[in-house]
Amino acid sequence: MKKVVLGIDIGGTNTVYGFVGQDGNIVHSDEIPTHGNKPVDNFINRLGEKLDSFLTDNSDFKLCGIGVGAPNANHFTGIIQDPPNLSWGDVDIVTLLHEKFNCDVSLTNDANAAALGERNYGIASDMNDFVVITLGTGLGSGIFTGGLLLYGTNSLAGEMGHLSIAKNGRACNCGLKGCLEMYVSAKGIKETVIEFQKVNPDDDFLSSLEPDFIDGKMIDCAIDDGIKSAISLYEFTADKLAYGIAQVATILSPEAFIIYGGYSQAGDRLLGPTRIALETYLMDNLKGKIKVLQSGLPTGQAGILGAVSLLWK
Amino acid sequence: MKKVVLGIDIGGTNTVYGFVGQDGNIVHSDEIPTHGNKPVDNFINRLGEKLDSFLTDNSDFKLCGIGVGAPNANHFTGIIQDPPNLSWGDVDIVTLLHEKFNCDVSLTNDANAAALGERNYGIASDMNDFVVITLGTGLGSGIFTGGLLLYGTNSLAGEMGHLSIAKNGRACNCGLKGCLEMYVSAKGIKETVIEFQKVNPDDDFLSSLEPDFIDGKMIDCAIDDGIKSAISLYEFTADKLAYGIAQVATILSPEAFIIYGGYSQAGDRLLGPTRIALETYLMDNLKGKIKVLQSGLPTGQAGILGAVSLLWK
Repeated sequence: MKKVVLGIDIGGTNTVYGFVGQDGNIVHSDEIPTHGNKPVDNFINRLGEKLDSFLTDNSDFKLCGIGVGAPNANHFTGIIQDPPNLSWGDVDIVTLLHEKFNCDVSLTNDANAAALGERNYGIASDMNDFVVITLGTGLGSGIFTGGLLLYGTNSLAGEMGHLSIAKNGRACNCGLKGCLEMYVSAKGIKETVIEFQKVNPDDDFLSSLEPDFIDGKMIDCAIDDGIKSAISLYEFTADKLAYGIAQVATILSPEAFIIYGGYSQAGDRLLGPTRIALETYLMDNLKGKIKVLQSGLPTGQAGILGAVSLLWK
Repeated sequence: MKKVVLGIDIGGTNTVYGFVGQDGNIVHSDEIPTHGNKPVDNFINRLGEKLDSFLTDNSDFKLCGIGVGAPNANHFTGIIQDPPNLSWGDVDIVTLLHEKFNCDVSLTNDANAAALGERNYGIASDMNDFVVITLGTGLGSGIFTGGLLLYGTNSLAGEMGHLSIAKNGRACNCGLKGCLEMYVSAKGIKETVIEFQKVNPDDDFLSSLEPDFIDGKMIDCAIDDGIKSAISLYEFTADKLAYGIAQVATILSPEAFIIYGGYSQAGDRLLGPTRIALETYLMDNLKGKIKVLQSGLPTGQAGILGAVSLLWK
């Protein structure tokens, strides 16, 4: 029997999962909708069906653990704490999965999982100090300092999405104002599009966007076609991201910020203006020293591999 | 012969130094003006006179090392890099002191020295994750994450004084805008007093303050006398400090922020309103979990003891 660990990366919209061997090879991966508005049992039952299906089709594999990356996850308690983008309340996911699947289960923050993935299998393998920023429905971050994943006292470190970049900025559903996530994420870009549509009601590209169904690829294509309002949309977003990165760089002085997740697919369309703006927001002694990199791992893989490394290591 | 290490805490205005035995006992300590507007040789010569005087008066002591905490100090290169509050440019202080006094010399950031002091001899002895904020001419910070002093890639981590709390805020001499130091430090309080004087030209207490010669004790006494404009001055300052602390807490999730240095003597006059404002700026899952403490070590001692621990450890 070949041993595999199931790695799960729970996102606000979709959950990516993969079965991973001890060599880091992903045997099989797929995704399911998270349906965060339904009870968590619904999610676990659908995940169970996928797991049963894999083990039935691959009878030479034995499941020996489950690693989970999830928003607002507490590595030390095993509980997902009332994540802002899912209506699950507090969920003791480690106990739930252990009881259902009878194997070792380990949990970490979704962005921490991505950081572990980049460190163990990605472009951060030689870095001791770096930050992974996950750009999806929200904005998360996983931080390494001095070669160690930063958990902080309550396993709540790395909530860069809730760094306030403007004291009286956009209201966030965490209760605070000006959270970076409200500018740089699917949620944030939706707000920006609504604002831009109000100011520019006659702009063809902006009018073509349905705020609730914005696909990053639409913006990418428009930028490639040289459409100015699309370029402005990402310049605005990049400026906010750069300002947030500069604040975190001032505290941590990391080697790099690695951008991962859905919107990271925009690549230099978003990261180019981010790098330019960043230089204007950094102290002189940090200018030119903070890299902004796009993750080299396919979307979902860093999260899966990082979650799995909680068990395999 | 009894061995001592000289610990030096170079501040923007004054430099505190002390001779410390291996047991952490400070045999003798004193201070000299830094005179950061004169060449660094002037500073080193005056320090040398104090050192010679001590060794002459105490012939049973042998100097076996010098530990230095200084603004913008790079632990790895031994260089003080063009500190904003001193006009010394880049100074290779480790080489200069080693050549002059012929002993081991180690350098770290002044705020890192204070953090080492709190960890080894102060109230952070049981904490793995904490931030020491030094409130003097400027605002510095020394950070422990996961039980280790945070240096970052270029030994430039922990520049909380240059966290921007307002994108278009007060101009800082580092070239950026809205730096926390421009609100919370001697420099920052000076700016606030000038602003407050303009808005309230008839206020007796504010009129009594000479912006270039503000002594924290004057403000403390006025607050103790219930003078409203003095209370407002620290409420304003506390609000900015709290907002800055909240941002760093969101990234690091530390157990405590420990306030050290001249203005920390204000105690609850400043830290009371800071704690209240902090709760309004923290995410729900951090509320009530982030302590704001006043250092228990006398001013100067944490810096001296931390600098010395670079050699004794």
